[in-house]
Amino acid sequence: MVSRVIPVEVFDLVIFGATGDLARRKILPGLYRRYLAGQIPPDSRIIGAARSAMTEAEFRQMVREAIDEFVSLDKRDARIISEFIDHLSYVAVDAKGEEGWAALKALVRPDRVQAFYFSVAPALFGDLAERLHAWGIAHPQSRIVVEKPFGRDLQTARALNATLAEHFCEQQIYRIDHYLGKETVQNLMAVRFANILFEPLWNAQYIDHVQITVAETVGVEGRGAYYDKSGAMRDMVQNHLMQLICLIAMEPPYHFDPNAVRDEKLKVIRALQPVAPEDIVRGQYLGLKGAPGYIEDSENPESKTESYIALKVQVANWRWQGTPFYLRTGKKLRARESEIAITFKEPPHSIFDDAPGWRENVLVIRLQPNEGMNLKVMIKEPGPGGMRLVQVPLDMSFADALGEEGADIPDAYERLIMDVIRGNQTLFMRGDEVEAAWAWTDPIIQGWEARGDRPRGYDPGTSGPEDALMLMHRDGRRWREIRE
Amino acid sequence: MVSRVIPVEVFDLVIFGATGDLARRKILPGLYRRYLAGQIPPDSRIIGAARSAMTEAEFRQMVREAIDEFVSLDKRDARIISEFIDHLSYVAVDAKGEEGWAALKALVRPDRVQAFYFSVAPALFGDLAERLHAWGIAHPQSRIVVEKPFGRDLQTARALNATLAEHFCEQQIYRIDHYLGKETVQNLMAVRFANILFEPLWNAQYIDHVQITVAETVGVEGRGAYYDKSGAMRDMVQNHLMQLICLIAMEPPYHFDPNAVRDEKLKVIRALQPVAPEDIVRGQYLGLKGAPGYIEDSENPESKTESYIALKVQVANWRWQGTPFYLRTGKKLRARESEIAITFKEPPHSIFDDAPGWRENVLVIRLQPNEGMNLKVMIKEPGPGGMRLVQVPLDMSFADALGEEGADIPDAYERLIMDVIRGNQTLFMRGDEVEAAWAWTDPIIQGWEARGDRPRGYDPGTSGPEDALMLMHRDGRRWREIRE
Repeated sequence: MVSRVIPVEVFDLVIFGATGDLARRKILPGLYRRYLAGQIPPDSRIIGAARSAMTEAEFRQMVREAIDEFVSLDKRDARIISEFIDHLSYVAVDAKGEEGWAALKALVRPDRVQAFYFSVAPALFGDLAERLHAWGIAHPQSRIVVEKPFGRDLQTARALNATLAEHFCEQQIYRIDHYLGKETVQNLMAVRFANILFEPLWNAQYIDHVQITVAETVGVEGRGAYYDKSGAMRDMVQNHLMQLICLIAMEPPYHFDPNAVRDEKLKVIRALQPVAPEDIVRGQYLGLKGAPGYIEDSENPESKTESYIALKVQVANWRWQGTPFYLRTGKKLRARESEIAITFKEPPHSIFDDAPGWRENVLVIRLQPNEGMNLKVMIKEPGPGGMRLVQVPLDMSFADALGEEGADIPDAYERLIMDVIRGNQTLFMRGDEVEAAWAWTDPIIQGWEARGDRPRGYDPGTSGPEDALMLMHRDGRRWREIRE
Repeated sequence: MVSRVIPVEVFDLVIFGATGDLARRKILPGLYRRYLAGQIPPDSRIIGAARSAMTEAEFRQMVREAIDEFVSLDKRDARIISEFIDHLSYVAVDAKGEEGWAALKALVRPDRVQAFYFSVAPALFGDLAERLHAWGIAHPQSRIVVEKPFGRDLQTARALNATLAEHFCEQQIYRIDHYLGKETVQNLMAVRFANILFEPLWNAQYIDHVQITVAETVGVEGRGAYYDKSGAMRDMVQNHLMQLICLIAMEPPYHFDPNAVRDEKLKVIRALQPVAPEDIVRGQYLGLKGAPGYIEDSENPESKTESYIALKVQVANWRWQGTPFYLRTGKKLRARESEIAITFKEPPHSIFDDAPGWRENVLVIRLQPNEGMNLKVMIKEPGPGGMRLVQVPLDMSFADALGEEGADIPDAYERLIMDVIRGNQTLFMRGDEVEAAWAWTDPIIQGWEARGDRPRGYDPGTSGPEDALMLMHRDGRRWREIRE
């Protein structure tokens, strides 16, 4: 079974902020990999745009270096790299002035699929959008791609949506959350909705609880000042973890189609209950053995910003009443790991004498490292030892088995950029989703700000503050171990 | 994870019919393998008994040859074989006379676990049972093991049960059906009852139908005269297939305990509906290219005996109303294969455009060859090709993965003989089960005898008569392919 590439139409993609970190690390190497996979039609144009004065040759050299740095060796083919580089142009553009726009207009073809990637500070979104129209570059089918942070609260998110809406309608706007582009997140949709086996059990009657963990090993080094205004709640929970909750908790959409899916996600966000202070644990990493703590990294000795947060969240609807969602995310933790664990209840009664102490079925959806999905079930231990039970993991992703024949699984950015070109918004956040997520987030943050809550200190390399363990222990449950 | 052998008490096992085919092929080689695995305590005795005058040395030589023939090379260890052989004795015994019984009494210790394996014609059961008591050999904890055929209809089965009951109570009687001793059949119990995932779906609301296939490639060569009085219905359906239906269809027993399990199985047999003539297809294999047909093999030119049968069976209770069980078994078919396929319904609605035409989940329980269990599920085809679905098999037995470390999976006879020694009747048929099975079988056979039905001819090497295909086609369903 060969994984096939879906062809896309010839397109012109303009990357604003093309010399920035995201473009160099993710967008441009991702486009190269899609080119290598044969998914980019030869006549397409990729146009870098940024403030810097730079020749086309200099830009191409920058991209060549980015490919060398961020594409794995086995995918670097000198001939293909040169071919890809030939598709690149560069225009120095002033987002707030008129410089470069005429040159850009000359490059972007009005009769092609057009996408404009706003890989720039949100403050510039309005300027870019306005000029794209003023110069007659964008047309009613043009697409724009915007990155988080999408606001820092409901008010700023609304303002940002309003700015974009002045120039583009919702069907043109692609708000990227790269968690949604992951292979395994999409497989979760397939597993839930293409099998009869799971949906009847996918509710509070059979699911004990859900755990979502996004653990990082890095601290905020280098971007401490920025992060200190954000914190784990804004930086991770409001977007990435929220999106994961939505995909797990949503009702079956009537069709796997952008608005049908996003309508269901929105219903989940709106069903999220306010979180009581005792259901929140915030943490801040400490210094250890000469390594700086968060206070040093943020250069703010008074900082109350959390580098870790754990929450117990309730989805108040018929399906989920009584099944808590436990979320945690943090920096400087024991391992880099993102996973969702859906823990089913134990069978109501055991007919077997053998009692290993765990009989629950768990569906583990691993986002990184090693994307994959496995379902833990009990079977008879094979062999002559009578009826002894043993828990085994069923591989629900088969990436190893099916992906062998040269099929490379694209990373989340590659997949999402191709979805933009295809005009498929299913895996992008709609404006009302983002606003609803902030509407739930804001009172939680306002609550701890009003109380002057200080995060608990935790040692780097641990699983976070001990209080976060208690959040589950007091419910008779336990976090899964954080490990690579 | 090492599969461990459960120790048993020191025992004396007497095999009546020790020079017969079953003893040579299965019982004695199986005991050797259990000895090799360390499961037979050193002080145990295995005593062959048969009519033939034979010295102990001759019997031991016969067993040595049986081991050479029926035990795989990697398990034949000359030293261990000699050790095992040393545990063997032989007594020539006349079932209908008094010869040899004193010698047997001298060998069988009254204070040990005693088991008497009646590997002889059912006509001798009464004689053996009577003499075991008359000579004071058996005691109230002695166990007897009896083989199919257990009667040829309800009347004969009742008579046989009554004969045994004169001398042994039900807790002492072990009616072997080796299908119940298979690793995978037991794993089915574990999968059903040690997971929350399956039981809520294990009913007519979610299961479309069940298929049970027991296909053989051999004909009745050599035992045609015997088989001609039996046929596939008596030889296979009434016992093996019936037992498989029971394990699939039964309610959860309150405990995995002999009577709790057998009570539930009995309820299934009693819930089986009479089968209408149009729901039965009988077949008889034809001669082809010089190979004899059934008529030649049975040496009965007028034979109406079926060497193949397919039936559509209904279990009339709350759980199964509307889910048919399709059974088929036959000789001279395309491949040797026994499997159960539990086909779940398709999801009620597909949200995906990709429509490969099959979306049903199937649990396939394979009994031979290559015992194992897999669950077919739909996942997203890994890779860049958008949301394409693909069906993959999840390995629910893990025999390869878990069985590697030298754990040999015992064959069904080995396991069942050890269960006799342990005194565990869970995997043996109770008398009332056997009678209930005949009570369902009799009217079906009487029906075709009264109508003078002739079986359809089918070519050897096929999947059976075409009419059997129609049995499912008319319900909009299809048999699974028969293949090794």
